[in-house]
Amino acid sequence: MLDRLGDRWTVLVLVELSKGTRRFRELERAIPGISQRMLSLTAKRLCRDGVVERTVYPTTPPQTDYRLTPMGESLAGMVSALADWSRENKDAIGAARSRWDREHQ
Amino acid sequence: MLDRLGDRWTVLVLVELSKGTRRFRELERAIPGISQRMLSLTAKRLCRDGVVERTVYPTTPPQTDYRLTPMGESLAGMVSALADWSRENKDAIGAARSRWDREHQ
Repeated sequence: MLDRLGDRWTVLVLVELSKGTRRFRELERAIPGISQRMLSLTAKRLCRDGVVERTVYPTTPPQTDYRLTPMGESLAGMVSALADWSRENKDAIGAARSRWDREHQ
Repeated sequence: MLDRLGDRWTVLVLVELSKGTRRFRELERAIPGISQRMLSLTAKRLCRDGVVERTVYPTTPPQTDYRLTPMGESLAGMVSALADWSRENKDAIGAARSRWDREHQ
């Protein structure tokens, strides 16, 4: 499962669902750049892993929503913290990489 | 940086260094299956990112040790928690996947 966290879309879907239940369209709008195909594939994988639950409502047209399972909630909390860490330290990591590249030319 | 966490060796090096400073040999022994080349490459990447610090001592032969920087410590804590989560939920995820595969043949 840990290897899945190297996938950006997986992280972004988990972070979005950590804010609450989302319709497919809501997820799509909340994650810029994700294609319908990739969102569907990512959601399917997370459902298969047992961290996300998908419910289809018999409306016309049928509505689908996604929510975190209890196991998913415990994961998403940590993933959100990591995503925050990554954002907060982005500049410091960039600076460290430039310094390293100068010192190791 | 988050994409790096999809790499098993990166996670295992961070988890080991979260327990304290380690010599290269100590890291190698603590991470079964990692080659010297992969350990050296992984450590170099983490040094370049500014999350690990490498010190070379002018002994004969020279000794090298690795420790987390303050930025690395804040990351490694979360990575260790995720590694624990992954281990604790391994069976539940396996069961969820088998159930999914049965239901989606």
